[in-house]
Amino acid sequence: VYDGSEIHEAVLTLLHPDRCGAEVVMAAPDKPQMHVVDHLSGEPTGETRNVLVESARIARGKIADLASIDGAAFDAVVLPGGFGAAKNLSDFASRGEACAVDPGVERVLSEAHRAGRPIGVLCISPVIAARLLPGVEVTIGNDTQTARAIRAMGAGHAERQADDICIDERLRVVSTPAYMSARGIGEVDQGIGQVIEAVLQMAAAPVPPAAARG
Amino acid sequence: VYDGSEIHEAVLTLLHPDRCGAEVVMAAPDKPQMHVVDHLSGEPTGETRNVLVESARIARGKIADLASIDGAAFDAVVLPGGFGAAKNLSDFASRGEACAVDPGVERVLSEAHRAGRPIGVLCISPVIAARLLPGVEVTIGNDTQTARAIRAMGAGHAERQADDICIDERLRVVSTPAYMSARGIGEVDQGIGQVIEAVLQMAAAPVPPAAARG
Repeated sequence: VYDGSEIHEAVLTLLHPDRCGAEVVMAAPDKPQMHVVDHLSGEPTGETRNVLVESARIARGKIADLASIDGAAFDAVVLPGGFGAAKNLSDFASRGEACAVDPGVERVLSEAHRAGRPIGVLCISPVIAARLLPGVEVTIGNDTQTARAIRAMGAGHAERQADDICIDERLRVVSTPAYMSARGIGEVDQGIGQVIEAVLQMAAAPVPPAAARG
Repeated sequence: VYDGSEIHEAVLTLLHPDRCGAEVVMAAPDKPQMHVVDHLSGEPTGETRNVLVESARIARGKIADLASIDGAAFDAVVLPGGFGAAKNLSDFASRGEACAVDPGVERVLSEAHRAGRPIGVLCISPVIAARLLPGVEVTIGNDTQTARAIRAMGAGHAERQADDICIDERLRVVSTPAYMSARGIGEVDQGIGQVIEAVLQMAAAPVPPAAARG
């Protein structure tokens, strides 16, 4: 949660597609983590770890280098949360509304979006959608500072509980607060389950690529 | 999966008690991992990592040192799988049927068992129950070599699919093959969900401590 993907969110993002009969390909950028945090003490350690190598733990070894992935080749793309989304997939953790998105993440999401693929963003990952898709409406839970940053990037903040989702039909983005506001893993599971169902439903009734650009 | 707790199994072991309204306390031994494995290449690295510190990632920081835990103080104890159970919680990975269980793990499980608490063991963890509770009947999936080792330790092997469980009513041990034989996370989820329901049902109708010794 403090230096990479939030593990519960990542695992539940694998579980729900399996229940729906969808196949998942996991991918991560091949680069060093911004921080390695000791999750017992909460303090950064002096270690260096690689985003792709550590992500491979959650993937049980079956993971692709993000650089090899074509965002348009999938029915949908989903980003779990955790500080990794704000430290490794973007620099939102240090730069807030002035953040930049990792070039590989930006490429894959842009390819997916231009091809009309729905995008799911969980927890803190909606800041990445807000940066890339002006005017998108997304959740962030009840964190007023992050909600303000989302609005400052030209996006809209939809207030939702962790067991609920927001669907932006126009830009085809589905979001849920997950651990930004959840009181436990059960609420996270409910929110993510609905995100996966929504993106798979949208994927089954695709809009023409041009219309998807909003 | 290759050097610690299997992450999907550990997360699902947190999800199902939450759904049932049960509170979970996570615990791990404070000692170095036997191996650190690069899950992208599958090869051991030269790093040193600590079992408790890395387990804290799955626990989102809320985890107890196993040494501080009284096994009798809980309604039930559940061990996820992953090679960690055979490398860190026991030395089954290197010694097979001649294995020893980590002294802290043995103490907590013995306290729980003597107090009549049900024990759930997932994936490869049934080898730990087989070592500590002679005559216990447990699953291991369809791995004939591990099934042979379980019988060599004086325990019984119950053949089950990954979406099914085995209940040893006498010794109050519930097991499921999980990733020893599962074809995907959905089957693992079904098996673990049933293990959690079974141990919570047993815990709600406790036997006197003496009878639990079998």
